[in-house]
Amino acid sequence: MSAEMAEQPAVLDRLLAEGAAAIRATAEAVAQRRPRFVLLAARGSSDHAALYAKYLFEVRLGLPCGLSSMSTTTAYGARPRLRDVLVVTVSQSGGSPDLVASAQAARAAGAITLAVTNNPDSALAAVTEYQIDVLAGPERALPATKTYTASLLALYLFVEGLERAGTAPAGTAPAGTAPAALPGLAGRILDRADEVRTLAARYRFAERMVLTSRGFGYPTAREAALKMMETGYIPALAYSGADLLHGPLALVDNVSPVIAVVTGGRGGEALRPVLDRLRARGADLFVVGPARSVAAASAGFVLPVDGVPEELQPVLEILPLQLLAYEVALARGRDPDAPRALAKTVETR
Amino acid sequence: MSAEMAEQPAVLDRLLAEGAAAIRATAEAVAQRRPRFVLLAARGSSDHAALYAKYLFEVRLGLPCGLSSMSTTTAYGARPRLRDVLVVTVSQSGGSPDLVASAQAARAAGAITLAVTNNPDSALAAVTEYQIDVLAGPERALPATKTYTASLLALYLFVEGLERAGTAPAGTAPAGTAPAALPGLAGRILDRADEVRTLAARYRFAERMVLTSRGFGYPTAREAALKMMETGYIPALAYSGADLLHGPLALVDNVSPVIAVVTGGRGGEALRPVLDRLRARGADLFVVGPARSVAAASAGFVLPVDGVPEELQPVLEILPLQLLAYEVALARGRDPDAPRALAKTVETR
Repeated sequence: MSAEMAEQPAVLDRLLAEGAAAIRATAEAVAQRRPRFVLLAARGSSDHAALYAKYLFEVRLGLPCGLSSMSTTTAYGARPRLRDVLVVTVSQSGGSPDLVASAQAARAAGAITLAVTNNPDSALAAVTEYQIDVLAGPERALPATKTYTASLLALYLFVEGLERAGTAPAGTAPAGTAPAALPGLAGRILDRADEVRTLAARYRFAERMVLTSRGFGYPTAREAALKMMETGYIPALAYSGADLLHGPLALVDNVSPVIAVVTGGRGGEALRPVLDRLRARGADLFVVGPARSVAAASAGFVLPVDGVPEELQPVLEILPLQLLAYEVALARGRDPDAPRALAKTVETR
Repeated sequence: MSAEMAEQPAVLDRLLAEGAAAIRATAEAVAQRRPRFVLLAARGSSDHAALYAKYLFEVRLGLPCGLSSMSTTTAYGARPRLRDVLVVTVSQSGGSPDLVASAQAARAAGAITLAVTNNPDSALAAVTEYQIDVLAGPERALPATKTYTASLLALYLFVEGLERAGTAPAGTAPAGTAPAALPGLAGRILDRADEVRTLAARYRFAERMVLTSRGFGYPTAREAALKMMETGYIPALAYSGADLLHGPLALVDNVSPVIAVVTGGRGGEALRPVLDRLRARGADLFVVGPARSVAAASAGFVLPVDGVPEELQPVLEILPLQLLAYEVALARGRDPDAPRALAKTVETR
């Protein structure tokens, strides 16, 4: 896991250098099909990458978007009518039978189908019309790290490609140079493992944890919660800041640590009243985000974003939280590379 | 909370007797608009009712369906293109500003808008084109109970109405008599509060809890987890059985109680291998479902469903879990009517 986390700057660099042109070509081909709705299908960490893409599709392209409930097809035999629907299946291994089956059913139902996977020879890539390879190289540790950030960037490049190809309302397409800063910033963040190790000590005896964010940072909160559970064995609940106020806030007090992902931008601004409520309740608040937000919290990790737009910050935000889950696992005497009970390719049907 | 839980048979009865015709008329009007895609917007317990509706839309009508991320509109100003899209906003109070704003934005963007609410005079109902009143009467306790089951039944009747009105592929519309059994069965379940009180003792010192299900029962697992958190203050994680195998399973051992909602039907069947895995790991497994599944578990509550189809069982499944959350709260010395930190209408923006 440690080695694969460390590879991330190189993986992002490779994806930009060697993968971007193919992704753009795929986006152009898909744009010509004029999708009007998007469905995303995924599980585990890939589901969080899919949720990130949902925000991109909605905000950047104005395309209504949903996350698939696979069981409607695999357990109930639903026959969705998918004309004009782009179905994007995200899977690191491309091997989960239920994802393959649901992608196949979507194609049969008339959908435009795309696989985003780290394995272009997978069963999933074989059944979809279009494929994107995230080029992360073999991932052997059970907790997904480099395939997660590579999937985020690949999905960003795809949505950007759709936008340029005219699926988006005219005039909103950006220059597209922002991703170039990511590998360097990712390297700077990962170099701060010692800082994270010190921070991990506070969770040595934590019995539970709440993670929160809003907007583009929310998938980061979800993915970080999964990392905390599968790597650090801390029961970790992730809520959007708005949902937190609808019930789970009752759980938060000064012995329930809260980790907030404060994206620099509108999502972070929308989270501010939630952070005020948490502070008022005496929550132990750990912030990943801008220096100002970290200074107002109990602890945190100042994220260098250097002009990276809000919608790309999730590629960076998760990095200190991957390190944190890893260091918490070590501090608690666990082996982060071998979470009990898990298999790398999950045979759900 | 206790009084409102006890009202549920009468509320379901009233909805069938006094509300069904209006809901059917609304469904007929919406069906004439020929929606091709459905977006659902909600928070808290209503979000779980929305998730239930998502399964119904997909399985019964073959309509692709997504859950809205409100912040894309309220924080990022996304301009979704919503022609042919039915946007259903579910809200007990109809008063959350972000739900009102997103419904308003959806209507301006060309969507067919529907409010499902317990308050027909609410700000939400005023901004949508169509309205469904769930007729649950004033709900004063903070944990939603009768408005939740009423919302499920109202959404079922609406989807059934759409199906009859021809939105669905021909020939699949059922007779529509199944809901009539619900009030009587709900009464029989709620009469077993003493049985649930005994079962609640096992969670007196539980420090966390995992809830799982698949298919139509999955919204029940999510809603029960929220009840456990906001009423019983037990950190409760809900996963679909498939997602549980993608990471969180590492958390489950013989000191982590698991509650499984085993719907009688295909969802319950799809959950069976997950329950086998949980048993193999020594999990303390509490089942709500058929007698056979309860007998194979550590404990459980046999749910009388007497021929009620799988897709309507969620209206009943949640009842013993509402009782359980209530009794766990009392056993732990909490006041279920006044969860700390929560307000009935949440002013998220």
